Amino acid sequence: MARFFVESVAPTDQFLVLEGENAAHAKVLRLKNGEAVTVCDGKGTDYACVVSDVSNGRISLVVQHMNPSESEPKIAATVYMGFSKADKFEHVIQKATELGASRIVAFPCRRCVARPDEKSLAKKLERWQKIAASAAEQSGRGRIPEVAALPSFEAMLKEAAAAELPVLFYENERARTFQSAIQAGPFQSAALITGPEGGFEAGEVAQAEALGLNICTLGSRILRCETAPLCALSALMYAAGEF
Amino acid sequence: MARFFVESVAPTDQFLVLEGENAAHAKVLRLKNGEAVTVCDGKGTDYACVVSDVSNGRISLVVQHMNPSESEPKIAATVYMGFSKADKFEHVIQKATELGASRIVAFPCRRCVARPDEKSLAKKLERWQKIAASAAEQSGRGRIPEVAALPSFEAMLKEAAAAELPVLFYENERARTFQSAIQAGPFQSAALITGPEGGFEAGEVAQAEALGLNICTLGSRILRCETAPLCALSALMYAAGEF
Repeated sequence: MARFFVESVAPTDQFLVLEGENAAHAKVLRLKNGEAVTVCDGKGTDYACVVSDVSNGRISLVVQHMNPSESEPKIAATVYMGFSKADKFEHVIQKATELGASRIVAFPCRRCVARPDEKSLAKKLERWQKIAASAAEQSGRGRIPEVAALPSFEAMLKEAAAAELPVLFYENERARTFQSAIQAGPFQSAALITGPEGGFEAGEVAQAEALGLNICTLGSRILRCETAPLCALSALMYAAGEF
Repeated sequence: MARFFVESVAPTDQFLVLEGENAAHAKVLRLKNGEAVTVCDGKGTDYACVVSDVSNGRISLVVQHMNPSESEPKIAATVYMGFSKADKFEHVIQKATELGASRIVAFPCRRCVARPDEKSLAKKLERWQKIAASAAEQSGRGRIPEVAALPSFEAMLKEAAAAELPVLFYENERARTFQSAIQAGPFQSAALITGPEGGFEAGEVAQAEALGLNICTLGSRILRCETAPLCALSALMYAAGEF
């Protein structure tokens, strides 16, 4: 069933209108009167609707009932990834959204090669948020994950440490497994931290450990920077009973 | 440490030579006399070597000792993916190799949009095998996963059914989780089957079930065809104790 995110929808609305990009998308799908569609507020509520009118650039809908979205995971997982080449971070935004991340955050660290300046960052964030919205729509999410960028490694650590299960994945860690960290749960929130192309420096890992974060391996194979967060997120969702 | 796959290496070899693509790669890395490198036979054995001579197009090595590769997972996982657009399957080959797949197999099914003919398939297989070799080298694998294509959906089911844990992931399955299938283990081999862009037809799922395969969900979010196999493989490696 077609699914649209609409920002301005209230629980009391009986009628809705799809405009702009949503209407263009509806046109591609050739929606007709009487067809059922789902409208989502992007905050966890779905509205089951029926198309009542299709005219130039506007699709009118009648709301039939509302429900909490059934596709949101129980665990709130934030994916923190060191600034990497744009295409890699964009790949992670799309896939992490599909896999159920609640938030996707870029942060600077010592071996980052591609740290955008303030001006280009604002533009990038806008673009990144659109990628998340589009992936949320396609994968049937009930919420659009927030995409953010933090100003420093320290700010990232501080924020991540507030999660019930904060984990920094380090390629030189051999002994401590993600399983051992997860088995201390159940947890309601997790922070999954992975590095940029060049990985983390030992000093950064020590900083994280000093703050009480779990330092874990993702196995004995070296994962690319865009593979590691998605591997960790898949494993977390599996362990949390999502599939 | 630099890592090279060499086909013609025997346990008794005391000296090795890197030629062709390996030598070109060594040149990029600016390898010098006395540097340590790892040579792998792609079948699970690593040879620790030291560079003894660098001359035009040839790198001479002295073998110091041999060891079983430490980066191979204990579980042999084959990823079966319905023929999809070329870039998606190539993405899966690269990432599944990093994540530890032992074999990556394409197969036809009813909703496949892109099934290559015999002639182009031979060329594609050659290209796909190179992608696997390159990803194996980068991720420090001890084996290069075999990339193959099967002639029919039935042939795929028959082969997959021979694994200790054969699972077909179906987006319309809601109740049966991958966790419940995995918890019946431990298993030494697994077959992870996912569909093409359009997913599986109900009849195909029934065929798989009749052969005794597990039909499982990957969660309530709709994963793209290139995300699903990597999500399943990550979860399997996690559950098998790899990280």
